[in-house]
Amino acid sequence: MHKIKKTNFINPDFLLQNDLAVTLFHTVAKDLPIIDYHNHINPKDLSDNKKYNNLAQLWLAIDPYKHRLMRINGIAENDITGKATDWEKFYQWACTLPKTVGNPLFHWSYLELKRVFGIDEPLNERSASFIWHTCNEMLQNDKYSIINLIKSWNVQLMSTSDDLLDDLKLHQEVSRSYNNLDIRPSLRGDAMLAFDKPEYATWLSLLANQTNRSINHLVDYQEAILDKLDEFMAAGCLLADHALDPDFYYELPTEQVAANFFKKILDKKTLNNVEILQLKSYLLSFLGKAYATKGLILQLHIGAQRETSTRLKRLAGNFGGFACIGSSCDTDSLCRFMDSLEQAAQLPKMILYTLNPADYEPLASLTGSFAEDGVPGKIQFGPAWWYNDHYEGIEQHLKILANYGVLSRFIGMTTDSRSPLSFSRHEYFRRILCNTIGVWVQKGLFPADLSLLSQLVKDISFENANQWILNQNTIYENSSIKS
Amino acid sequence: MHKIKKTNFINPDFLLQNDLAVTLFHTVAKDLPIIDYHNHINPKDLSDNKKYNNLAQLWLAIDPYKHRLMRINGIAENDITGKATDWEKFYQWACTLPKTVGNPLFHWSYLELKRVFGIDEPLNERSASFIWHTCNEMLQNDKYSIINLIKSWNVQLMSTSDDLLDDLKLHQEVSRSYNNLDIRPSLRGDAMLAFDKPEYATWLSLLANQTNRSINHLVDYQEAILDKLDEFMAAGCLLADHALDPDFYYELPTEQVAANFFKKILDKKTLNNVEILQLKSYLLSFLGKAYATKGLILQLHIGAQRETSTRLKRLAGNFGGFACIGSSCDTDSLCRFMDSLEQAAQLPKMILYTLNPADYEPLASLTGSFAEDGVPGKIQFGPAWWYNDHYEGIEQHLKILANYGVLSRFIGMTTDSRSPLSFSRHEYFRRILCNTIGVWVQKGLFPADLSLLSQLVKDISFENANQWILNQNTIYENSSIKS
Amino acid sequence: MHKIKKTNFINPDFLLQNDLAVTLFHTVAKDLPIIDYHNHINPKDLSDNKKYNNLAQLWLAIDPYKHRLMRINGIAENDITGKATDWEKFYQWACTLPKTVGNPLFHWSYLELKRVFGIDEPLNERSASFIWHTCNEMLQNDKYSIINLIKSWNVQLMSTSDDLLDDLKLHQEVSRSYNNLDIRPSLRGDAMLAFDKPEYATWLSLLANQTNRSINHLVDYQEAILDKLDEFMAAGCLLADHALDPDFYYELPTEQVAANFFKKILDKKTLNNVEILQLKSYLLSFLGKAYATKGLILQLHIGAQRETSTRLKRLAGNFGGFACIGSSCDTDSLCRFMDSLEQAAQLPKMILYTLNPADYEPLASLTGSFAEDGVPGKIQFGPAWWYNDHYEGIEQHLKILANYGVLSRFIGMTTDSRSPLSFSRHEYFRRILCNTIGVWVQKGLFPADLSLLSQLVKDISFENANQWILNQNTIYENSSIKS
Repeated sequence: MHKIKKTNFINPDFLLQNDLAVTLFHTVAKDLPIIDYHNHINPKDLSDNKKYNNLAQLWLAIDPYKHRLMRINGIAENDITGKATDWEKFYQWACTLPKTVGNPLFHWSYLELKRVFGIDEPLNERSASFIWHTCNEMLQNDKYSIINLIKSWNVQLMSTSDDLLDDLKLHQEVSRSYNNLDIRPSLRGDAMLAFDKPEYATWLSLLANQTNRSINHLVDYQEAILDKLDEFMAAGCLLADHALDPDFYYELPTEQVAANFFKKILDKKTLNNVEILQLKSYLLSFLGKAYATKGLILQLHIGAQRETSTRLKRLAGNFGGFACIGSSCDTDSLCRFMDSLEQAAQLPKMILYTLNPADYEPLASLTGSFAEDGVPGKIQFGPAWWYNDHYEGIEQHLKILANYGVLSRFIGMTTDSRSPLSFSRHEYFRRILCNTIGVWVQKGLFPADLSLLSQLVKDISFENANQWILNQNTIYENSSIKS
Repeated sequence: MHKIKKTNFINPDFLLQNDLAVTLFHTVAKDLPIIDYHNHINPKDLSDNKKYNNLAQLWLAIDPYKHRLMRINGIAENDITGKATDWEKFYQWACTLPKTVGNPLFHWSYLELKRVFGIDEPLNERSASFIWHTCNEMLQNDKYSIINLIKSWNVQLMSTSDDLLDDLKLHQEVSRSYNNLDIRPSLRGDAMLAFDKPEYATWLSLLANQTNRSINHLVDYQEAILDKLDEFMAAGCLLADHALDPDFYYELPTEQVAANFFKKILDKKTLNNVEILQLKSYLLSFLGKAYATKGLILQLHIGAQRETSTRLKRLAGNFGGFACIGSSCDTDSLCRFMDSLEQAAQLPKMILYTLNPADYEPLASLTGSFAEDGVPGKIQFGPAWWYNDHYEGIEQHLKILANYGVLSRFIGMTTDSRSPLSFSRHEYFRRILCNTIGVWVQKGLFPADLSLLSQLVKDISFENANQWILNQNTIYENSSIKS
Repeated sequence: MHKIKKTNFINPDFLLQNDLAVTLFHTVAKDLPIIDYHNHINPKDLSDNKKYNNLAQLWLAIDPYKHRLMRINGIAENDITGKATDWEKFYQWACTLPKTVGNPLFHWSYLELKRVFGIDEPLNERSASFIWHTCNEMLQNDKYSIINLIKSWNVQLMSTSDDLLDDLKLHQEVSRSYNNLDIRPSLRGDAMLAFDKPEYATWLSLLANQTNRSINHLVDYQEAILDKLDEFMAAGCLLADHALDPDFYYELPTEQVAANFFKKILDKKTLNNVEILQLKSYLLSFLGKAYATKGLILQLHIGAQRETSTRLKRLAGNFGGFACIGSSCDTDSLCRFMDSLEQAAQLPKMILYTLNPADYEPLASLTGSFAEDGVPGKIQFGPAWWYNDHYEGIEQHLKILANYGVLSRFIGMTTDSRSPLSFSRHEYFRRILCNTIGVWVQKGLFPADLSLLSQLVKDISFENANQWILNQNTIYENSSIKS
């Protein structure tokens, strides 16, 4: 029978269950820089080098994960996203946190209080006031400006998420202002395909304005998009990103048919579901090829059920943390989409994320179905995403990736977060990675080859992303080595 | 290398792998009362305080789980549900049990023989006769009447499963006759939506009779249902329950369209699939709102494939243990159903059970998509259900609930069983709960905070159900606490 | 904290984590013969007793699993399946192998090099040349002919996979030539239902030729098939096999409608999707009944997404390792198919394999939905298949089978492989089986009953397949045992 011993919760060996895991984390993973290739921090905040009035502003206001758990805990919406004071909201979060045993937010919260503020004390109803005042005082110091926070995590490169029409000057300004911090835009592509949304017409006329084009035909639309893509390229963009929600079905119409559907939209006529789906397929195909041509990576975020509570959307906004995991993906559609690009020799590098764990094995196996000479890991099974970004989710993702693909080629973690504290999740990920490998070796599933395993940890924690995202892969050369 | 040591199988530390798990189980969980909020024991048996002639009558005749494993083991149906003698059936079960390594029935059977009859000896071909005679003799004693059996498990409240037309007097009679045993009816709602089944016409005319109404229109039907719901409320009903089988799709017709479809049924005309589905959607929506208005909890049992072998249905009856796990749920339909109730401010508290583990993460995440101020855990991800109610299924359910929701708000176990021995599954569940927490702490996933973890175990084993099911939640009060 | 100790990777206790697992493997599992009931070795190679020029010919050329990982690793297709020399291909595989940490190919490769060639040295860029020369020299010895390789694994019976039109004489020739090696054909049935494929017309006229029949009507087609089935029976065939890809839907047309659809095919007209699906349902039903009548076992391979990259299909052929895991199965269709056969009293014994782990619980539970008096394990949840045949996949399969069915009745492992080295996977499977049981006992999930557990391991490793596949089950006799 095992004896449980008490230690500080966030101790140096947090989550590391054997000596190999400890060695790998402390000698290899811990001090590597961070490449956060998919991030939602607001570029304006970076440009302003924003400071935070209090812990609620920094830690709660922009964190729908916390809002969600507070709701399940029965807290009134007014005390979550409503008119309550920042202190009241923080206090309710402090009361909720001890209820979240087993949830990643428990780990993340302890880790962030420890790493950013040096706090070991558990946050709860009793300690709330003390921690609130302690942190708020520290936040007055310039050390806690957003840029200094980000730099404190050893972030080397960060890709924000930007609409086609967003201002891209901010990123370059910031990158120029600070040494060793490379901030890039990345293209959040969903608005381009949202012609069934009420806000599309306004968005489209803005696009026409910004590109000085009249958009009277699908071809005009495509050209305007290409103009803007050039601006993204000029601003150092490396990746694009689309959501494939559970209703995704790939059915490519002819160019003429697609053009007719688009004309109906310009004429304010309504498309039926099949027409929408075909026009989306057409544009997704057009965009996929454009990304490939320009060397952009295509990220697909698959499986979110975004339409749930109309009430919460009204109260908490579009990204209010009320989405859930949707039905699983139509793998056949995904394959036909990728194949049509590959047949045109325009399949970009891709990262496939899914919110539904039932799609893990299908997507992990897909990484071996499309390939390119000299491009290791061309199709990536993206890291455990959003609600799946928990201890067991990360471990499960790594195991499935290893079982169905080539783990050594994995580009590793990204936060997908709006918070400058979320970079703690890279530490979280690296600890789980080192522990997973340690346990494999302990079970005899892999030889205790420290040199090979150190390289593996280094590659997944940093090197692969550094090479793959930045297109710095050594091009494969056909060896003429003699046996 | 670990050494295996031999102990009695059902020993005090059965399933408890470390000292924290042992402490939590023995000092907190073990002696808490049971609230079995979804149960299928026949109220007539309770009212009669039924006694059992022999072990086969008590243990086999009403247990389709055992029938199922006997079938897989090649036993002839005659020796399972047919004309063989009770002894012959018991003997075949005794021969089958040692084959069920790794199945929950192995655990449950050992646990029940030990707890009810004090038997440690393994049941098999050789011990069958001895155990048969030993138990049968004990069954003659009044200690083994159904009520005494139930009380021996420390059951405090039990909700049976009753059709809209069932007699509800029995429950109150029983509750009045025995101290500290609260028996409640709950509404099994499927018959109300089964207008595509041959027995519906008869059921409908019974409803008309019982409510003294002529049912000539959908509105009459709805009013008759509301009459009966009032009777359920008067009898102390707390919960209703509907099956959502894999063909569930939510598509709400207008009231007029629904009324026309219902008229066709009254006129003995056949509805096509889309009409059935729309009428079901209409009535499910009507009922959901009615439950909310009356403060009833709505349980959804999702994902059973009930139509499998026509042969076994004929031989073993509708609930003969031949159902299997069906395809996964249409999450979008479920969300639209819940949203339509919430938009009408009539979303009841809900428990979502699923038979398909591929739906675990979607349903667990759904618990954060709908919420109500002051109602902790309003949407519950129900405990591992039916065939999933095994060691790993329970552990997986707890982990997923913790990862995607707030474990501390979970209302815990219910048996969903027809047998008075199945309350052993509360012990089974509590051991797994304590062990899961113990292993988390051992791995460093949670601090060894005995006070907090004891409360967690207490809440999930008893307190949450006691408060949530009985609507005794302290109403959330907006704190005006000063920092 | 656990200490990791270094040992030879493939040591006697490889994958065995406690002393019970060690005992079960070494005293029970290790030396049992192999029954490989679903295998893809080319019968012509057996008949020729093929020898291999070099390690690439034996180990790489016919192994799409390795090709797949090499592609993910960025190796050019030319160096995988193209015009590069055998050495160049082997060298690229040697460079790839150390990257495959956590993948079953890492384990299989080490196991095969050790068991077949006695090599302990890790294969990598540096050792490639040495291992290449060492093995190639050994391959010149007759010990390494395909038959001797197979016999070295202690294979007792092997079922190859043969088209309806294939030559079946080879199997009997081989069986007669070698003692204690029983080679059987099994029927790969997909060509019979592939009337939507371009090669079907040629195949059909070959069938007509071989059976001396004019095929002008569906009935002629069915009779020709029955003729060939008789030939398979005469050649000792035990099993048939069909793929159920993700578009499978069961919708049985009348005989007349099916005959009309078949006529359209004979007349070179195109069927629409619904017509194809109905005609497939009709023929699948016809074949299922025919198999039952003849005592053949029906295997269904469910859930492969075979259409992915057109480019790779062109370069690497139809079975080039680019398939992936498809969407999950329509359980309702599967049940209706099985029920329709059972209602006709013509449900054959079946093995259900799936490539999508999201279907594991549905299929495992299905094993209890159809049964036959006196036939233990009539519906088998087939072993972890294809990409799922990894450490965790095998463990997960065993656990799910145990949780939802009767593990003791499982017929165990088959390789489904084209390589004479893949029989190593039986050792791999048996180690995982013994370890899974050992860990169960260690956790207190099963009593440490060595006699019962030894029998379990023996049954799953060999006896069940020996009895079930060869129809040697003792017919169940209704006992008249007195209590």
